[in-house]
Amino acid sequence: MTTPDQDALVQRTLRARRLGLHTQHQPIVIMRTDCHVCRAEGLTGRSQVLLSAAGREVRAALFQVEGEGLLAPDEAALSEIAWEMLGVTEGAPISVTHVPALESLASVRRRIYGHRLDAAAFADIVGDVAAARYTDVHLAAFLTAGAVLPLDEQETVDLTAAMIAVGDRLSWDAPVVVDKHCVGGLPGNRTTPLVVAIVAANGLLMPKTSSRAITSPAGTADTMETLAPVDLDIAALKRVVDQEGGCIAWGGAIHLSPADDKFVRIERELDVDTEGQLIASVLSKKIAAGSTHVVIDIPVGPTAKVRSEEDARQLAERLRAVAARSGLEARCLLTDGTQPVGRGIGPALEAHDLLAVLRNAPGAPDDLRRRAASLAGVVLEIGGKSEPGEGAALALETLAEGRAWTKFQAICEAQGGMRVPPVAGQTHPLAAAQDGRVVHIDNRKLARLAKLAGAPDVKAAGIFMEVRLGQDVARGQPLLHVHADTAGELAYALDYAAIAGDIVRVEP
Amino acid sequence: MTTPDQDALVQRTLRARRLGLHTQHQPIVIMRTDCHVCRAEGLTGRSQVLLSAAGREVRAALFQVEGEGLLAPDEAALSEIAWEMLGVTEGAPISVTHVPALESLASVRRRIYGHRLDAAAFADIVGDVAAARYTDVHLAAFLTAGAVLPLDEQETVDLTAAMIAVGDRLSWDAPVVVDKHCVGGLPGNRTTPLVVAIVAANGLLMPKTSSRAITSPAGTADTMETLAPVDLDIAALKRVVDQEGGCIAWGGAIHLSPADDKFVRIERELDVDTEGQLIASVLSKKIAAGSTHVVIDIPVGPTAKVRSEEDARQLAERLRAVAARSGLEARCLLTDGTQPVGRGIGPALEAHDLLAVLRNAPGAPDDLRRRAASLAGVVLEIGGKSEPGEGAALALETLAEGRAWTKFQAICEAQGGMRVPPVAGQTHPLAAAQDGRVVHIDNRKLARLAKLAGAPDVKAAGIFMEVRLGQDVARGQPLLHVHADTAGELAYALDYAAIAGDIVRVEP
Repeated sequence: MTTPDQDALVQRTLRARRLGLHTQHQPIVIMRTDCHVCRAEGLTGRSQVLLSAAGREVRAALFQVEGEGLLAPDEAALSEIAWEMLGVTEGAPISVTHVPALESLASVRRRIYGHRLDAAAFADIVGDVAAARYTDVHLAAFLTAGAVLPLDEQETVDLTAAMIAVGDRLSWDAPVVVDKHCVGGLPGNRTTPLVVAIVAANGLLMPKTSSRAITSPAGTADTMETLAPVDLDIAALKRVVDQEGGCIAWGGAIHLSPADDKFVRIERELDVDTEGQLIASVLSKKIAAGSTHVVIDIPVGPTAKVRSEEDARQLAERLRAVAARSGLEARCLLTDGTQPVGRGIGPALEAHDLLAVLRNAPGAPDDLRRRAASLAGVVLEIGGKSEPGEGAALALETLAEGRAWTKFQAICEAQGGMRVPPVAGQTHPLAAAQDGRVVHIDNRKLARLAKLAGAPDVKAAGIFMEVRLGQDVARGQPLLHVHADTAGELAYALDYAAIAGDIVRVEP
Repeated sequence: MTTPDQDALVQRTLRARRLGLHTQHQPIVIMRTDCHVCRAEGLTGRSQVLLSAAGREVRAALFQVEGEGLLAPDEAALSEIAWEMLGVTEGAPISVTHVPALESLASVRRRIYGHRLDAAAFADIVGDVAAARYTDVHLAAFLTAGAVLPLDEQETVDLTAAMIAVGDRLSWDAPVVVDKHCVGGLPGNRTTPLVVAIVAANGLLMPKTSSRAITSPAGTADTMETLAPVDLDIAALKRVVDQEGGCIAWGGAIHLSPADDKFVRIERELDVDTEGQLIASVLSKKIAAGSTHVVIDIPVGPTAKVRSEEDARQLAERLRAVAARSGLEARCLLTDGTQPVGRGIGPALEAHDLLAVLRNAPGAPDDLRRRAASLAGVVLEIGGKSEPGEGAALALETLAEGRAWTKFQAICEAQGGMRVPPVAGQTHPLAAAQDGRVVHIDNRKLARLAKLAGAPDVKAAGIFMEVRLGQDVARGQPLLHVHADTAGELAYALDYAAIAGDIVRVEP
């Protein structure tokens, strides 16, 4: 026999039901339109509800289903992400109630109306974001507000600190821990795995965590995943770095800056990547990873993310300043951003370029080799492994002697075993329409073409460049090949190529 | 026997399945994780797909389900909204492909980066919004961009024109067609049904369409719905207006400015309502409804939407200017916004106030009566039914003689039959903590309290005011009653009241 109180409790809960429903990132609960809890709590017509079970809480979108087919009246079906977040088992009691008001949204509204925020406001916002309390609409509004009225230096410092505070932090038993980062926007610029291998081979500690692509066809984590497992947890990452001096892991698996993943998903949907958010994203991850020194690659070119030297210098100055105020020494390198680096664009195609450079293979892309060596050189210099001005030579030597390749293989094995990057099932050339010389390559259109072909989700998809700036070509000669896994994706990309105007411009 | 082409077509389609799944506004398609179309088209991991059937297209979020339980491998289950938009029948073939890129998002990004947009850009954006091609993230970014860097006059004119262009337009066989609008922010300020009744009783044409609540506990459509059907289509609206000279309909049912409904849903989630969007929303609906003259009520008070006389005058000036450039004559009235109007806050509670005024009942709220009469008076004056300065007297006379009540009942009957507003099952007083005088009433906290109690979705929910500014009260005397349909909602609202600080401030 149950007491009246227990009766009341039983009546206010529903039984958890797992549907195996993958809803991307969305926590969703599905209840019957005639559900007694909805009626008793007045939840019908609410867009969000709070699910609670055994001390855990999840905000979920409320969907309702008519009739008998899918659910019993006392069942609440959860999407996979809600199921995981709530950590329940089949049939477990779930209580469903109103979502409490989010006080931090008042700060988002203040920012929308043009007022700047203080450290406490950023801490509240980022705390709610990391706890998955914000809807996509809230996230998009916060990010857009910080784009239209760009975050100032103080706000960027505060956002960075807030993003560090909500995640895990690594600490290392070493006085110098190095890192590198590229602000992106240049297809194929996949120097990170080379830099880690070179630097670790020379005895510096470089626990590198990378992101997946935001608006590009491949992030370092996407590329590296075709060569070795990258979803290391903190214990695995520590083990790899203790053993090899370096790693190339996906940052998302280790919660170093968990709010950033939520921001990145929205920035990707908007195809917007702003300075303040970029700086907070980069620096929060470096600092949380325990880095003391970081080298930042800023490619500059008319179709790169940073279009002018002046913009690049401003960004470098802001990066240095925010880093310094956050306890990190940053060095920025302005690099050539007029054309892609290497020949591949897309996770696996870039991995093939990396392997060629590491193995000193004939035909390995020399621009990728030189660029990686110059970045690794600065890392070696600020890390005290080389005299100023001599780092790049040491880096090239490390590659030429095969020490970087040996180290890279050891890191891959330590991360779980080396993999062979896939090759696409479908390729198609885009050919020169006339004889002439390659005078311009549009990085943005290349990136879009590679994404339409399926990159980064389809690992083998992307573009293989057949020409470089200044090269003479004959009519009909392939300028690039599009790689795709399916005929549908290939057709989709080629449809875009047909209307995009010059992607690679050839002039007589 | 099928030809190879037909085979290919059959293989690329799935069979439509109706789940009866209510997903609020979200078009969703659910497919099996082992679905052949997903694999052939490379759709797995895409967040959006394009559904096509018999010439109609819908962009839908792609959810996937594991295993046999829910769907056959060749079935695609649609949410109710996707089902309606696509207009399919059970088992009909649906093709599922990549979503084409939305060119108008480039304009949204330009706006995010601080550039102003021209008429063509607004036309493209609003066209895509009205066709439901924008995700919530896109909508939130567009609206936020126009809030942080407020729309200028030209942008507001262009947005207004774009919003009119994508919807239906009404035309009337009359030289003068009047309208009124309140910018909102003042709980209980439900003058519209009174103004329509007064004005129509005096022979002016007033085809009024109203919105549901955006950030308030009740919109005119929410309140009116408790008194008569408001979801009139164009034919019904024309019939009512031809017969009675006026109507009070919900604008959303007649597609006068269909993009606005999409914007409003996001503004509601953000609890943000900006000047440019407000003006475009109001004027696009008035112009599409065929109005020639409009009177706009701008309540001013420290906790109203417009907080100062200066802000109100700026808004009035912008409204007049944009209206004039859009072919509409607008008159703005700055009104007292220091406390709620009438006694009820919430759809049904406000409806009870309206009935009391129309019936000249004892105890009918005099502030509501006088405010409606002054607004109706200006409408009568600009509509040529009264000499300047004499409109309000004519309006009060129309109420006192019962002509407004007769007209109101006739309009309700013409709209489908008069209804009795519901009464809440649960009420609870908030009492004065001490003897003293009511010195301040916080409209924003009142609105929030009413919304937490369930308004506007729960028609009977809201607040009944027991006191007004300047009134003397004794300790323990009720300042207001909270009305709710369920104990859960009542508790939820009272939880807020306990922590909200002074909602009604009493000082000795």
